[in-house]
Amino acid sequence: MIPPDDAPSPWTRISRRLAYENAWIQVFHDDVTRPDGQPGVYGVVHPRTHAVGVVAIDEHDRVLLVGQYRYTLDRYSWEIPEGGAPIGEDPLVGARRELAEETGYRAGSWAELMRFSLANSATDETGALYLATELTLGEANPDSTEDLTLRWLAFDDAVDAVRTGELFDAMTQMGLLRVALDRAGGAGRRPRPSRPSDDLLG
Amino acid sequence: MIPPDDAPSPWTRISRRLAYENAWIQVFHDDVTRPDGQPGVYGVVHPRTHAVGVVAIDEHDRVLLVGQYRYTLDRYSWEIPEGGAPIGEDPLVGARRELAEETGYRAGSWAELMRFSLANSATDETGALYLATELTLGEANPDSTEDLTLRWLAFDDAVDAVRTGELFDAMTQMGLLRVALDRAGGAGRRPRPSRPSDDLLG
Repeated sequence: MIPPDDAPSPWTRISRRLAYENAWIQVFHDDVTRPDGQPGVYGVVHPRTHAVGVVAIDEHDRVLLVGQYRYTLDRYSWEIPEGGAPIGEDPLVGARRELAEETGYRAGSWAELMRFSLANSATDETGALYLATELTLGEANPDSTEDLTLRWLAFDDAVDAVRTGELFDAMTQMGLLRVALDRAGGAGRRPRPSRPSDDLLG
Repeated sequence: MIPPDDAPSPWTRISRRLAYENAWIQVFHDDVTRPDGQPGVYGVVHPRTHAVGVVAIDEHDRVLLVGQYRYTLDRYSWEIPEGGAPIGEDPLVGARRELAEETGYRAGSWAELMRFSLANSATDETGALYLATELTLGEANPDSTEDLTLRWLAFDDAVDAVRTGELFDAMTQMGLLRVALDRAGGAGRRPRPSRPSDDLLG
């Protein structure tokens, strides 16, 4: 329904330099020729990982949320379990690991909800969201940089919290809205089984 | 349903330097004390604008999409009209301007769909999504860095294209899923009238 567009890029990269990097991101400064033919610059933020997020739902139809203080926003945020899958790794592998490390939970059933680019005007970050069910509790092992709290919220309450903005993390909103819409839409619109590809935009 | 968490930040900023900037983003490199008490670093990407996106629907229940080649992803992307609202500006004002400049359309009715943080592990970017209806066509005036194509897609087809991943831009996915769920959920769950605040996380 949306035909592929094989148009060549109207941008030309003249040069690229690494402007900043740390363990999590690289920032490139490119000299470019813009679509209008004029010289310009483009700063590209390149995370070293794909973003993965997990809507984990238990047998009581509750969603698993992780609370943490987000340094970037200088505020507390409740979110679905999220993390980074190194580029080249199957994002499902990363999602399983992040769920286990952050929360201690393993899931007997996984389905891919969707793939996305997160903020494509300034970053090349892509990601994937999964629905995880048949949960069993093991041992958690969060990163030393993480100070996490777990909470279970009834699924419908979580969707309401997206609507009101109490849950304001974009991946959390996307994942919960998608599952809620799949439920509302009935059969034939369920998430597909997860794909083994690591090409998040493929 | 999600009690406010008044916990103080477990992070302490020791120092901050500007590592990179251009007209659109700043990147800060911070020396910090991490939640575990150990010294660490944090790179914070700070866009100079809030992200705004507009789900614009006409009287035939079609959604307005903007196609452009995304330099960051090196691929073409169909998206809802999106842009940046300078921080401190009411994001609704920015949304009206971006819709008009990119597409030429003005809307007689605006409703806020939701606010969000977009990629809060590495950026402090926040944004807002709006539903715009009662559209009338005026004159477009895109930025010189933009090479845009417009297309109308039936609303249900656009939601299907989110499900399949053909529409892979996160704000486009969030906005369309939200409107679709509001429709499925019936009365009492409609988007609220837009707020004049510019505190996107308030």
